[in-house]
Amino acid sequence: MNMSRTRGERLVVIGGDAAGMSAASQARRLKGPDELEIVAFERGNFTSYSACGIPYWVGGDVTDRDRLIARTPEEHRARDIDLRLRTEVTELDLARQRVRARDVDSGAESWTPYDKLVIATGARPIRPDMPGADAPGVHGVQTLDDGQELLDSLARTRGRRAVVVGAGYIGVEMAEALINRGYQVTVVNRGSEPMSTLDPDMGRLVHEAMEGLGITMVNDAEVTKILTGDDGRVRAVATQDREYPADVVVLGIGVRPETTLAQAAGLPLGTHGGLLTDRSMRVRGHEEIWAGGDCVEVLDLVSGQERHIALGTHANKHGQVIGTNVGGGYATFPGVVGTAVSKVCDLEIARTGLREKDARRVGLRFEAVTIESTSRAGYYPNASPMTVKMLAEHRTGRLLGVQIVGREGAGKRVDIAAVALTAGMTAEQMTTLDLGYAPPFSPVWDPVLVAARKAAAKVRSSL
Amino acid sequence: MNMSRTRGERLVVIGGDAAGMSAASQARRLKGPDELEIVAFERGNFTSYSACGIPYWVGGDVTDRDRLIARTPEEHRARDIDLRLRTEVTELDLARQRVRARDVDSGAESWTPYDKLVIATGARPIRPDMPGADAPGVHGVQTLDDGQELLDSLARTRGRRAVVVGAGYIGVEMAEALINRGYQVTVVNRGSEPMSTLDPDMGRLVHEAMEGLGITMVNDAEVTKILTGDDGRVRAVATQDREYPADVVVLGIGVRPETTLAQAAGLPLGTHGGLLTDRSMRVRGHEEIWAGGDCVEVLDLVSGQERHIALGTHANKHGQVIGTNVGGGYATFPGVVGTAVSKVCDLEIARTGLREKDARRVGLRFEAVTIESTSRAGYYPNASPMTVKMLAEHRTGRLLGVQIVGREGAGKRVDIAAVALTAGMTAEQMTTLDLGYAPPFSPVWDPVLVAARKAAAKVRSSL
Repeated sequence: MNMSRTRGERLVVIGGDAAGMSAASQARRLKGPDELEIVAFERGNFTSYSACGIPYWVGGDVTDRDRLIARTPEEHRARDIDLRLRTEVTELDLARQRVRARDVDSGAESWTPYDKLVIATGARPIRPDMPGADAPGVHGVQTLDDGQELLDSLARTRGRRAVVVGAGYIGVEMAEALINRGYQVTVVNRGSEPMSTLDPDMGRLVHEAMEGLGITMVNDAEVTKILTGDDGRVRAVATQDREYPADVVVLGIGVRPETTLAQAAGLPLGTHGGLLTDRSMRVRGHEEIWAGGDCVEVLDLVSGQERHIALGTHANKHGQVIGTNVGGGYATFPGVVGTAVSKVCDLEIARTGLREKDARRVGLRFEAVTIESTSRAGYYPNASPMTVKMLAEHRTGRLLGVQIVGREGAGKRVDIAAVALTAGMTAEQMTTLDLGYAPPFSPVWDPVLVAARKAAAKVRSSL
Repeated sequence: MNMSRTRGERLVVIGGDAAGMSAASQARRLKGPDELEIVAFERGNFTSYSACGIPYWVGGDVTDRDRLIARTPEEHRARDIDLRLRTEVTELDLARQRVRARDVDSGAESWTPYDKLVIATGARPIRPDMPGADAPGVHGVQTLDDGQELLDSLARTRGRRAVVVGAGYIGVEMAEALINRGYQVTVVNRGSEPMSTLDPDMGRLVHEAMEGLGITMVNDAEVTKILTGDDGRVRAVATQDREYPADVVVLGIGVRPETTLAQAAGLPLGTHGGLLTDRSMRVRGHEEIWAGGDCVEVLDLVSGQERHIALGTHANKHGQVIGTNVGGGYATFPGVVGTAVSKVCDLEIARTGLREKDARRVGLRFEAVTIESTSRAGYYPNASPMTVKMLAEHRTGRLLGVQIVGREGAGKRVDIAAVALTAGMTAEQMTTLDLGYAPPFSPVWDPVLVAARKAAAKVRSSL
């Protein structure tokens, strides 16, 4: 039990990935070791790595696992961060301002007091509660260790049939990875179309493109069982209707905030199970506790309600804000607009703001339009088709959301809408946005402007 | 002389390219031929073509001239627009609301009365007033006819030495076009670095990249004479220092508003020689006259002053606004933020807002930062370096401008800043923008966010 307090304040960080270590690093930048001792607990073997990069490592685009690691444990320690790997925090004692941690290898436990605490415990993958879900050959892709296990499993397997369960970002990215590895890929999806973060009409475009890539897309399918062979290894995935033979199965059915510790300590959780913070990323009602990354809920600036979004870019921003505040500065995270971008082979998929059902759920009436355009001037080589859907609020015309499906140049166009959403622009205001134009980069009316014109017209005609 | 007025109002449009024909088309959409007669005069042979596409046609990326034509004369006529090609308007008679037009071929002149008038006379290229400027082998690239003449000239010339005069957008695009055609290209530039629409430190990056492409870049050079051989054809370009042998010369030294008619009629012109309009694109002080495209000045929303920008995307927007207003609707063009994007081979160049000297000129004090980042996550294949420069106002931190030089994925990132400028965001506000992130699309901190963080920090530390 280490109760010695020889120096200034002590910051304890729970979780050694993006949010936690960004917070630790930023706090260290602002306060030296004499002012602030920093102890960080990580139950795994790695720090500050890009979980978002795992599909590209599995698919072979990234050849070296270590390239996914932004900062190693040694680098953190060289900055006077007392990083304790393979050490899991098992209890928060808020009354006495201390955490209990267990050495994963020895099982030894000890308490560490804190003056300030950062909770960055991340998310845990949803694992289906069904027979066979833990069989050899069934893999998640949440951590670097998961990725290594999957790669080892692929190396051991002679068969070439892969089933991906789930058709969200992870699902489609893993479908691409397995196609790149030469597998026959079947994606089994509970929803009516892949990418349920899009409206189904846009998801349909993803569906068609995936089939064009040779991926078998099975929608409206509930996985009921994972079947194993005599050797105990996975041999098929069963749905309500039929069986899909599988030499390897990848689960990509989403994540939930990992807030077991926080819940046990009575910290405030939202309806999605994530910690609730204020704008400075402080846990609500707790002056000395901050939380960020995949374990928190964030304010959706468009709907006005909290959401749970597990995304490295948010985790890094949270960490930066927390570290600044812990270090005595001032920073806030105002919220998100729900931007996400992904790709499956050369198909780019992007969204920001609200889908139709999100808007309805929060009582917003809207006009929706969909347009077809191209990534470059139509006469320029490699101009590729792009579909843009836009939702604008009825009457006010305020932008509510944009979804884009296309090829090269489609994905990052969503940033235009992300900034416009943040600024509260109307579709009409967007029609005169001064966006970059030259034939290799855009038609003379950028696709987002074409959508804005149509949305603005529809808003006007519905008044 | 045609004074017959058998129908409703008559709209006369002067100029058959983007602004004029967009206005005519939009007005026609809103008002049928019984309500509104539309007469459009164009002195050339083409309508509604992409002048911006000419370098790519010359360079061979676009193989067919007709692909640059968005709408042919026949298509316009099919929509009941009385289009008169090869007919030049020679006089505006505001008092009697009529224009005098001359048939270019026959020389015959006649007056046409109007109820409403749209002036879309475009811009004229700056031609150097020096010996040899009109010699065979010296070409502008303003019109489709110019492009055809240049292509014919290239086909006739055995030599492979090209000199491009001017290093702005047209200059660098033509350098690329001529490299693609197998020429040895020398670019002679009056400024200290190419791309004077960027600050010189960013122009330096373009300079280095152009040299890396094998283009000879001559800065600080004033062309004094164009030398011709015994056959009368160009043989060299002379500057104050030396001669550059040339089998073909392309002039890309900018354009000025073509407002000869407007000036003669006493319409209001700004300090850049362009027509001054109000927000509905109506010529100031003239209820029934609109103007748009390359012949007008536009309000720069960042500096608060008028500028002249010849760019097809603005011309199309102006035409849309004018046509809507002429057709009895309501639309405005609020102004520009000065966004432009270009490329020379695989180098992408973008800018929006104010350069350092623009800010100083209008009395704005600023903090400037420059950062290096990459187009994708550093570990993802083909992540390419990108330099982002950002100017933020001293004290307020308001974004003033962004310049980007990089490879694939650099150019259109400027749209993020263009929207943020329009919304009046500060660098600090930009640091939490919810931009699209996934490893194939961006580092976890988008390069624009990295620049915003550094700019915000510099603003804070200078308080």
